[in-house]
Amino acid sequence: MKLVFAIVQDADATALIRALSEHAFEVTKLASTGGFLREGNTTLIMGVPDERLEELKRLVRQVCRSRTRLVTPGVPIAEQSEPFLGEPVEVPVGGAVMFVLGIDEFFKV
Amino acid sequence: MKLVFAIVQDADATALIRALSEHAFEVTKLASTGGFLREGNTTLIMGVPDERLEELKRLVRQVCRSRTRLVTPGVPIAEQSEPFLGEPVEVPVGGAVMFVLGIDEFFKV
Amino acid sequence: MKLVFAIVQDADATALIRALSEHAFEVTKLASTGGFLREGNTTLIMGVPDERLEELKRLVRQVCRSRTRLVTPGVPIAEQSEPFLGEPVEVPVGGAVMFVLGIDEFFKV
Ligand code: NI
Ligand code: NI
Ligand code: NI
Repeated sequence: MKLVFAIVQDADATALIRALSEHAFEVTKLASTGGFLREGNTTLIMGVPDERLEELKRLVRQVCRSRTRLVTPGVPIAEQSEPFLGEPVEVPVGGAVMFVLGIDEFFKV
Repeated sequence: MKLVFAIVQDADATALIRALSEHAFEVTKLASTGGFLREGNTTLIMGVPDERLEELKRLVRQVCRSRTRLVTPGVPIAEQSEPFLGEPVEVPVGGAVMFVLGIDEFFKV
Repeated sequence: MKLVFAIVQDADATALIRALSEHAFEVTKLASTGGFLREGNTTLIMGVPDERLEELKRLVRQVCRSRTRLVTPGVPIAEQSEPFLGEPVEVPVGGAVMFVLGIDEFFKV
């Protein structure tokens, strides 16, 4: 068993939690903010059996992969889909960091 | 010294924090949600001397023990005590998971 | 690489996060409350290269050092600077605890 802390973008958190639940990973979401990568992060804490670590990493990579999104500068996100707003630019989104910790003892009530 | 993460139900969190404080355990509450066990969890982080681990586990077991509660399906929790609401069923409550981590260094300012 | 959890007073959190960012430490803030030291704490989670641990400790010591502040008992913080409020007393502020954890694996998407 390992204890895993994953820090992901808020934008990816819901999709990742859903994917983890579908694959029977138990995950607890800690409210968090700022820091790694850029603003708006979510920290997840998970107890993960050693033999499922690779599967977990595959899921995180799939959902949170670094990618770009077209955004029109100076326009609120909610209005991004409206036409004639100017020249859109590519911005990076996604990305995640995962810390895998050994545990001395796991205790369940 | 160990670093302990305990994930407990919101319903047990206040009683557990009180019990821990009464026994001079220093505990910090992290807001958290969902995942382990069922929805509505609280994550606690604690620095615990090795020789007090068993005492800590005893307290967690006492406060968060798995148990059942009678609930009438489809009725809001606040109205559960009203009569004539239908057939109550037993639902599980309580439960906790604890991860005990070795630490490389503890630093206090 | 180490995983560091730092628990500091809310009053020092903003200054510490700014100092850490200025020195290129990546830090994620977890909402937290109560416990260590006294009420009103903030928990920070950081991935830190081994060779920067001493620098990190120096920064935490600088920003969060235990110190006293003059407070007039029974007077709201916002009004503390007004004259003629009675006899001020020294109260302790600051302080921090840091847990440095070894990690089995670090994974970045
Ligand atoms: Ni799948
Ligand atoms: Ni007792
Ligand atoms: Ni400096």
